[in-house]
Parts: sequence; C-alpha cells; structure tokens
Amino acid sequence: MIPERRYSVVVVAGGQGLRAGGSLPKQFQRIAGEPMLMHTLRAFYAYDYRMRIVLVIPEGYCSLWKALCDECRFTVPHTVVHGGEMRFHSVQNGLREISDEETVGIHDGARPFVTPTLIGRCFDTSFELGVGIIPVVDEVNTVRVLTETGSRMVDRSRLKIVQTPQVFPAEALKRAYEVEYDPTFTDDASVAERSGMTVRLVEGEETNMKITTSFDLAVAEHRLAAMQK
Amino acid sequence: MIPERRYSVVVVAGGQGLRAGGSLPKQFQRIAGEPMLMHTLRAFYAYDYRMRIVLVIPEGYCSLWKALCDECRFTVPHTVVHGGEMRFHSVQNGLREISDEETVGIHDGARPFVTPTLIGRCFDTSFELGVGIIPVVDEVNTVRVLTETGSRMVDRSRLKIVQTPQVFPAEALKRAYEVEYDPTFTDDASVAERSGMTVRLVEGEETNMKITTSFDLAVAEHRLAAMQK
Repeated sequence: MIPERRYSVVVVAGGQGLRAGGSLPKQFQRIAGEPMLMHTLRAFYAYDYRMRIVLVIPEGYCSLWKALCDECRFTVPHTVVHGGEMRFHSVQNGLREISDEETVGIHDGARPFVTPTLIGRCFDTSFELGVGIIPVVDEVNTVRVLTETGSRMVDRSRLKIVQTPQVFPAEALKRAYEVEYDPTFTDDASVAERSGMTVRLVEGEETNMKITTSFDLAVAEHRLAAMQK
Repeated sequence: MIPERRYSVVVVAGGQGLRAGGSLPKQFQRIAGEPMLMHTLRAFYAYDYRMRIVLVIPEGYCSLWKALCDECRFTVPHTVVHGGEMRFHSVQNGLREISDEETVGIHDGARPFVTPTLIGRCFDTSFELGVGIIPVVDEVNTVRVLTETGSRMVDRSRLKIVQTPQVFPAEALKRAYEVEYDPTFTDDASVAERSGMTVRLVEGEETNMKITTSFDLAVAEHRLAAMQK
C-alpha cells in the first residue's frame, strides 16, 4: 500500500524585518499591490491546495494581517502562529502545529518567488529518501575566508548557497528543534544536522531570491511586473 | 619629497557576456540609454580625471565601440585594447599598457555602480601600504561546502565576497601576471598571491553589483533610474 503523503509548510516571517525600511516589517510590504507574504503562501497553495500552511508572524501583527487578508480578499487557507525572539524560536513555534507523521517544509516568508517546481522537488525527494532536503545554487562570486593572519581564497566550485524550502520528516525535525538555541543555527539544516539527521542537497533556483533590503523590494516589484507581462 | 601618484585602471570587458541574452555582449548593452561600460568608465574619471583608463574589449568590437562613443558623445579619455581568451588573458593585454611605477586598478566592466568613494579607498590604501588591495563585503547567505561524502555548513561570519577594483603596485602585478594561466585564477588577487604578493582587504560596497544576467541588467536599469530621481 502506498502511504498517504501529508505535506505541510511553516512559512517563517516572525522578524521585524526593519532593514528594508518603511513603517511596516518587510513581510507586510507590498509587491504588485499585495503583501509579500501573500505571494509566498500562494506558491505553496498552487503546488498543492491540500498542503497545510502555518504562517509565523510577529506578535502584535495578527490583526493587521487579518485586515490585509480581508482587504486583498486573500483566501489561501492557513494557520497563524506568533513568532519568537529569533528565527529559531519562530520555527519552534510553527512546528508545534505540525504532526509527527507529516513531511514538513520550512520556508522564508521573504522568498516570494519560490516556484511549484522547486517546492515539488524538495518535498518529493524528502518523502522518497526520508531525509532532510535543502535547495542550493552555485556560488558565482569570488570568495575569501578570514584567517588568523589575514585571508585566503576559497575554491568556489565547492561552495553552495543555501535557499528554502528546506524539507524534513516532521518527527525528526521536531526532535531536532528540542535543542537549545545556538547562534550558528542560520538555517534548519544546521539544526537538523546537530541532531544527527542526514541532509541532502537538491538544485535550487536562481530566481528564488530572499528580500532583505528596500532595494530588494524594488527589484522584486520589477521582477513581478515582468513576470505578469 | 612626496612621490607623485600615478594612477591607472584596466577595465576588463573582454568577454562575450552572452549569459545576459540580447544580440550584443552585455558590456555594450544599455542602462539608462548608455552602454554599461560608459557608466563604468565615467566612475573612474569622476574619481580623478587624471587617471589613465585602459579598456579591454573583445576583438572585433572596436569599431562598434567607437560608433557608440560617437553616438553618445562619450568624451572620457581612454585607450582601447583587445581582450584574450579568458579574463586572465584580457588583464595581461591591459597590463602591457601600464608602466611599472604606477598604482594600477583592475576593474570588472560589468560593475558600473562602483563609486568614487570606493575607488579612492582602494587606490589610497594600495598606494600607502604598497600592497594589493581588494574590496570585500559580508556573506549574507547560508553557505555549504561540498565534501567527499556530501556537504557541511561553513561559518559565514568568516566569509567575504570579493569585488573590484582590485588595486596593486603595477610592477608587482605585471610580474605576477607573467605566470601560466590556471583555472583557479578567478580574480587578480589570486594571481598576485601566487607570486607571493601580500593582499589586504578593505570594505567594499553592497551596491557594487556585477551584472551577469538579463535580470541583472533590468535591476541595473531600475537602480539607475532611482538614483537619477
């Protein structure tokens, strides 16, 4: 018997995102008329309308989010959860909504250009192999590493830039997140590996950019306009 | 007696730059109505009109470049040199125009947003310390390195992304470039270090982006429009 696939995603947008400027955290700022988060959530809904979506936003912004959803007639079903102090704590809060038997993705709210193709690649591979899956792209820059005496070059052909969604068997990820916070946890794979979980790489997408600054927001606006032409 | 400062820059645009699409190599494509290279050259001229500028473009494009300069009434003085097979060979060709006693910068033609501030920081520091200077910015992404068995996380707080202009005492750089081409030479610092030269880092600029794809070109157009408002 083929096991039923139960997919869910935690979209992490629990930070104040103040680097982007503006009066609102960046995840609520608009791209092509709609808050960035709506574009992100819609990508997962478009991949599979049965995927359960848990959205983590900062405490104090829930009524704003509800008002935005009403205004934009945003109908993608999702559960709202409060963010924590760091991204790590926001993910912990989101994972409380997830059942052990699911395959769960963790995705940055600030990556609205994720495609259903990439979502499928990450979830399918995690489901099939039963391990953590993270999408990566090539490092195209020249990179140096700081040393005690200065710096030295790094062979960039061996470097990969990490994106999201990072997808895991939920039970294992939840167990991994029972650890104490450590500042070296910059993504979910780093937490998963600390617990001994195997993590495999799949090909990400160059277009799956993370929006951090006000310039990134302007770029995103430009890109979306081009896509909708 | 204060030694006279003699500054020069080799602007490297010797490739076919076909990743950006379009019928022309990207360095000739327009941003805000003018070929990208004109923006780049103008930045160095704006820093110091006495700086000697050597421009390396692919063989076969010299008459096109001359026609573009006429059309745009582009009056920044510069010498044109033919590019070689790889960036390495293009820099070699450019360096033949440079005298030993100069302080020489090597700059990517595809970085038109370099500012006079950054140019000054690189040239002044190289002149004062008599070593190679390269501008770098922080790595903001999560990065992994491929290993024999898979991949592992890298401490990104120790990683720096390398930009240009990279600035050197000309005699030492010219001697360094007498070496055979090696595919690990992804920038000028890597060539300089092979010869034993010391290389120091200075702070680069986040806005000093390299234009590689057609999307980057659209972003550049957007940025320049915003800057000119």
